[in-house]
Amino acid sequence: MFEYKLIKKDSKSMARRGTLTTPHGEIETPVFMPVGTQATVKAMTPEELKELGSQIILSNTYHLYLRPGHKLIEKAGGLHKFMNWDRPILTDSGGFQVFSLKDNRKITEEGVMFQSHIDGSRHFLSPEKAVEIQNSLGADIIMAFDECAPWPSEHDYVKKSLERTTRWAARCKEAHQNTDKQALFGIVQGGGYEDLRIQSAKELVELDFPGYSIGGLSVGEPKNIMYDMLEVTTPLLPENKPRYLMGVGSMDALVEGVMRGVDMFDCVLPTRTARMGTLITMKGKMNIMNAKYAEDLSPIEEGCTCYTCRNYSRAYLRHLFKAKEILASRLATWHNIHALHELMKRIRLAIEEERFMDFRKEFFEANDDYSAYK
Amino acid sequence: MFEYKLIKKDSKSMARRGTLTTPHGEIETPVFMPVGTQATVKAMTPEELKELGSQIILSNTYHLYLRPGHKLIEKAGGLHKFMNWDRPILTDSGGFQVFSLKDNRKITEEGVMFQSHIDGSRHFLSPEKAVEIQNSLGADIIMAFDECAPWPSEHDYVKKSLERTTRWAARCKEAHQNTDKQALFGIVQGGGYEDLRIQSAKELVELDFPGYSIGGLSVGEPKNIMYDMLEVTTPLLPENKPRYLMGVGSMDALVEGVMRGVDMFDCVLPTRTARMGTLITMKGKMNIMNAKYAEDLSPIEEGCTCYTCRNYSRAYLRHLFKAKEILASRLATWHNIHALHELMKRIRLAIEEERFMDFRKEFFEANDDYSAYK
Repeated sequence: MFEYKLIKKDSKSMARRGTLTTPHGEIETPVFMPVGTQATVKAMTPEELKELGSQIILSNTYHLYLRPGHKLIEKAGGLHKFMNWDRPILTDSGGFQVFSLKDNRKITEEGVMFQSHIDGSRHFLSPEKAVEIQNSLGADIIMAFDECAPWPSEHDYVKKSLERTTRWAARCKEAHQNTDKQALFGIVQGGGYEDLRIQSAKELVELDFPGYSIGGLSVGEPKNIMYDMLEVTTPLLPENKPRYLMGVGSMDALVEGVMRGVDMFDCVLPTRTARMGTLITMKGKMNIMNAKYAEDLSPIEEGCTCYTCRNYSRAYLRHLFKAKEILASRLATWHNIHALHELMKRIRLAIEEERFMDFRKEFFEANDDYSAYK
Repeated sequence: MFEYKLIKKDSKSMARRGTLTTPHGEIETPVFMPVGTQATVKAMTPEELKELGSQIILSNTYHLYLRPGHKLIEKAGGLHKFMNWDRPILTDSGGFQVFSLKDNRKITEEGVMFQSHIDGSRHFLSPEKAVEIQNSLGADIIMAFDECAPWPSEHDYVKKSLERTTRWAARCKEAHQNTDKQALFGIVQGGGYEDLRIQSAKELVELDFPGYSIGGLSVGEPKNIMYDMLEVTTPLLPENKPRYLMGVGSMDALVEGVMRGVDMFDCVLPTRTARMGTLITMKGKMNIMNAKYAEDLSPIEEGCTCYTCRNYSRAYLRHLFKAKEILASRLATWHNIHALHELMKRIRLAIEEERFMDFRKEFFEANDDYSAYK
């Protein structure tokens, strides 16, 4: 029930067009996955996400484990049913969140003891526990429990960390109960060190996962380092398995990631910044709170086909933000998710039509945010 | 373009079934009108309101005048276009909000000087100004500028106040520019005094408005006083004109208001309490935050056909509220507006089928919130 099918390879880059088959449907790749941290993509209904063309969403094991609890979600028939979403779901392992609780966690070979950000209660997350929780949630794609080393870290620390991540990945594979319904991905780590990325990728490929994530990037390092790390990693990953770059969702990084052979992306940025009034367009970002939009009766983005642009003006949207109306978050989120889905759609088409590198050039030329690339 | 047609009168009460024709469509009465204070019904899109069966919404002159300004809305083509709502709209006059600013306003015969709740800036609202703003907004039904006397007030104060409200109503009528497109309602005041309600109603009817509002109720007085005031007022209002009870929207008051001859109601309560987790059902209100719903996988209301009840459990909704998710407000608002529209639909049907008083009896018997009526 889980298969990656390669449809087309770009001749001038690592970009590739594929299809991912899961128990809850097919996914056209490369794909951007909106994030629904707490069993809801903030401000949106599942029906709206479908209308937007969301093919798969991500949800967070750490958050759902603490609240409302994975056992309740299992009792409700799994995460799909609990949140009313019948397309594919990917859950992370909780590792990233737990390791972010710097002062409130203790790492051992066995796992991580940590304190809840909600009520300070103490919990223990291990490879086995992370998989158990994800088995209860029932997502189509689940993640091995990994350590995401902070940026920057010493070579020695990162090496020990990635080696433990490999051992944990093996334990996750061992603990995984629903191999027929849920595909477990291993996560490549290695910080900003080429040799360690290579070591991590090779170790994980040896363990043979149905897909591979690339973690520990977009955590504060310069973008050129992220791209360098991708360039040494993706060639080592099997061609017949999907590759997922974790936590990356700026337009430039989506284009650059695809060029380096990535199939899947997720990021809270488009939805989070939407709620603060930052709108993503093909010409660059705009802050709708800016006074210059106060009487601007044009849509956010001329030619955009999203619900927001079809029905509302910048002046109205700015009014909603000034008045702190919930509809402001809804309309802005709608537009931003649409923007990234539209970008990925154009990327997929460009690969199919063998003009991805031309598309990339045109994209950066038209977008004021990325003058550094020009 | 504005006409009230009486379809059916109940033989055992003052309840009546009618149709109100406006430039933006017909309204079946009795009707509940959701409130969109700042040019949006909080948490909802216009399309959702249509799906819910909202026939007309209310918006607030005071708020829109201060932000974003009526001139911008006029430039955008009027409130309908600005907010993407093509069904009827009713605007209030701003009187209620201005008089609520107790320490920041000064009343003269000419009008009211007040300070904005947003930035403290000074403004002057008069009958002429209130109508000018409402002419810019372009709602189908607009309100005369009135004084809503606080509860309780002395007989002498209320008498002087209602007499000024009558003089202001005459000035509003004089100032009104769009009589062909916007129906101006006079507002009956008179506090909790029968003689003053009678005086106010008679004075306004003499001025001949296309509809009449009943104001100054549901402002802190016991409900039996509200009902007493309705009983002396509605018989004095012309049968061929609609009657609108301002700011009333609890289920019991809707039923009791209809029984006393009211056609139109509005209230922020269903939407405001929704955002705090209070859900309205035919059996009584429930607070979804209550721990007993933590693992309750049933819908809010068994048999309810709303989007929320069709797709989500109490446990999921409670989780969304605990996690402070925007979707919580959306789903709860959806249910509460549906509940009141459904109640009004049943009321309309009961009147048509000549069983309104039986319906009323059954309603109170089934609803735990209103044991006082049993």
